[in-house]
Amino acid sequence: MKVFADILDTVRRCGPVVHCITNYVTVNDCANIILAAGGSPIMADDVAEVEDIVALSQALVINIGTLNSRTVEAMLAAGRRANSLGRPVVLDPVGAGASALRNDTLQRLLQEVRFTAIKGNISEIGFLTGEDAKARGVDAEGASLVTEGNLKEAASMARRLSESTGAVVVVSGAIDIVAHADGVWTVRNGHPLMARITGSGCMSAAIIGCCLGVLPAEAPQACLCAVSSMGVAGEIAAENMANAGGGTGSFRALLLDAMSMLDGPFLTCRADVKYM
Amino acid sequence: MKVFADILDTVRRCGPVVHCITNYVTVNDCANIILAAGGSPIMADDVAEVEDIVALSQALVINIGTLNSRTVEAMLAAGRRANSLGRPVVLDPVGAGASALRNDTLQRLLQEVRFTAIKGNISEIGFLTGEDAKARGVDAEGASLVTEGNLKEAASMARRLSESTGAVVVVSGAIDIVAHADGVWTVRNGHPLMARITGSGCMSAAIIGCCLGVLPAEAPQACLCAVSSMGVAGEIAAENMANAGGGTGSFRALLLDAMSMLDGPFLTCRADVKYM
Amino acid sequence: MKVFADILDTVRRCGPVVHCITNYVTVNDCANIILAAGGSPIMADDVAEVEDIVALSQALVINIGTLNSRTVEAMLAAGRRANSLGRPVVLDPVGAGASALRNDTLQRLLQEVRFTAIKGNISEIGFLTGEDAKARGVDAEGASLVTEGNLKEAASMARRLSESTGAVVVVSGAIDIVAHADGVWTVRNGHPLMARITGSGCMSAAIIGCCLGVLPAEAPQACLCAVSSMGVAGEIAAENMANAGGGTGSFRALLLDAMSMLDGPFLTCRADVKYM
Repeated sequence: MKVFADILDTVRRCGPVVHCITNYVTVNDCANIILAAGGSPIMADDVAEVEDIVALSQALVINIGTLNSRTVEAMLAAGRRANSLGRPVVLDPVGAGASALRNDTLQRLLQEVRFTAIKGNISEIGFLTGEDAKARGVDAEGASLVTEGNLKEAASMARRLSESTGAVVVVSGAIDIVAHADGVWTVRNGHPLMARITGSGCMSAAIIGCCLGVLPAEAPQACLCAVSSMGVAGEIAAENMANAGGGTGSFRALLLDAMSMLDGPFLTCRADVKYM
Repeated sequence: MKVFADILDTVRRCGPVVHCITNYVTVNDCANIILAAGGSPIMADDVAEVEDIVALSQALVINIGTLNSRTVEAMLAAGRRANSLGRPVVLDPVGAGASALRNDTLQRLLQEVRFTAIKGNISEIGFLTGEDAKARGVDAEGASLVTEGNLKEAASMARRLSESTGAVVVVSGAIDIVAHADGVWTVRNGHPLMARITGSGCMSAAIIGCCLGVLPAEAPQACLCAVSSMGVAGEIAAENMANAGGGTGSFRALLLDAMSMLDGPFLTCRADVKYM
Repeated sequence: MKVFADILDTVRRCGPVVHCITNYVTVNDCANIILAAGGSPIMADDVAEVEDIVALSQALVINIGTLNSRTVEAMLAAGRRANSLGRPVVLDPVGAGASALRNDTLQRLLQEVRFTAIKGNISEIGFLTGEDAKARGVDAEGASLVTEGNLKEAASMARRLSESTGAVVVVSGAIDIVAHADGVWTVRNGHPLMARITGSGCMSAAIIGCCLGVLPAEAPQACLCAVSSMGVAGEIAAENMANAGGGTGSFRALLLDAMSMLDGPFLTCRADVKYM
């Protein structure tokens, strides 16, 4: 099992190309965080080209944040192609439960594509397991967060979704959960300010793509590294912001700064990962 | 009539979900400014889901900045649904007058949707009242600004549009105008640097959505609070930038910073609102 | 032949409207860099309106970064209209060679539209000349960069493309090349950090649009000014970042800062342009 410093180092040396079919709200943040981590982003969402683009890439990230009838077909085609090429595929089910279109699309995606990792907040993951969860704004806090109070329930929900899909399931929140047949881990990194900017979750999925791109055979470890990296970068950003006295606009830039300068051994030390 | 500090506080406590059908140029800025103000953004523009999304939201913002045949239908469906649910709807007629597509779309929107607020620069508002105004780049300065020189003319134009549509009409510029059957107000807040970044106007409309989301029954007051908030945030950002010696890239981050840390009582004091 | 300070000054005085049909990844960066340079951006990509928008603009920039079947038609219509109006047109062939859709689109664009300038990295330009180049992620470094080692080869490739298209050809890299029937120049400005954020190349094309918008009759000089401006802004940003100790998030803001405050005479002095 590789330590996180080694995974991060491999991302930087290999520069995995990560194909994102993602929403237009945070697409720039996703591209910049992939570059900051050492990967190489490529965004393409037309059904006429996604199969070509997947073939050039080491990982595919599908984010349904601003899906439409045109891009849904591209997601399906890209996902199937990635499966046939053996490339890892990440699903970020943004706003699952918020509309029939999103729900139907998720059903089709889960039927037609084998995902390596699925990352969502507790309400999104809850929806995918068939549990009744209320969707709010996609950046919603509060009811959508994993905390010490609902940790066990969230963990077993994540494990069920992992068992039914075969994917590593990542539940993001104040505490992050990474669940797999091999076990369930918690990651206690990150900072509340991450929920006050748009894109933290989308960027996390993009970094999962980066790590899976260089470590496809060890998906749980790759997800743990990605989630910890984002969390530790958030902590560093918050610490640097405390010095600067800034708000959310500064935090956003400092988060990219922190990822772009993240020290491998520091990440290994600071990552707070526990087997449940 | 609520003071601005109370409205801002309500936004922060209630976290209104604001559904934006907006352009892909400044959509990230809109999401971040809504979060900075305390709201919860959700972006969705497919006709197959906008009615579901509107039903989850406290306000709808329609911005025609990069409209296309697909999203126009979504705007109409979302607007009608918001009307039937009694949710406030904001129109940002970006680039009104610049193309037949924009003009025809605006005509359809105004015929089929009842807007709670319409916000544009003087050339956009002029176009909606049927006056001949030349459209330039959507971030154009100069002829598109309200100044002391054309203030009266702009105010009466805004009032006419308010009378014909029933909406509160906000004309943005060096001086902002908020017009309604109840009266016309000026807001003398803001900073010239706001016109040197893209998205100031779009963010202003997004914040109008936030304030209307918590104060739908007092639309003029909600609009005044939103416009003042953006203006005061711009002033704070410019002051902080003067210390840092920055340019427009820094200003953009500092504007989000200022909104995310805006103090309610400070806003109440600093807002320069006058009844005309 | 105008010096760069004069061109920059003209951009600031005239505020050319630059119509961009561009990708949704970096569109906000393009709008902000155009504003920072003194231009006025307008983004519009629906075939029903691009001809109207081109008619309001001083230059058109076509970037195929996230093309789709809908926007390809808009690119063609806008390009033909710009040609018929005598407006300069810039092509940024992002990801040329990465998919059949991109390659077919580029072929159609080059057949149906006369470009004033074409800007790409060496692999993109190589593809357009029919040479076999491997496409990677669109922000890929390494093999896609012009260096002292492949400078001559890149210059003659650029010249061939210029001869076959009539366009000024700009090859971006550690060294930039500007090639035309009149000659070939190198521009040795810029900083490696520019390759670590998304959008540097797209912004460069946007600035070429600004400069061509005020100097359409002297296209090589306009391109040299644009490329030098971006490079010098990158150098200033890197210098200011060294003081601040930042990463890529800060660099991105500092790059916009530098362009927005770029001093004309400083640009003239610092621009490192050589005739080959």
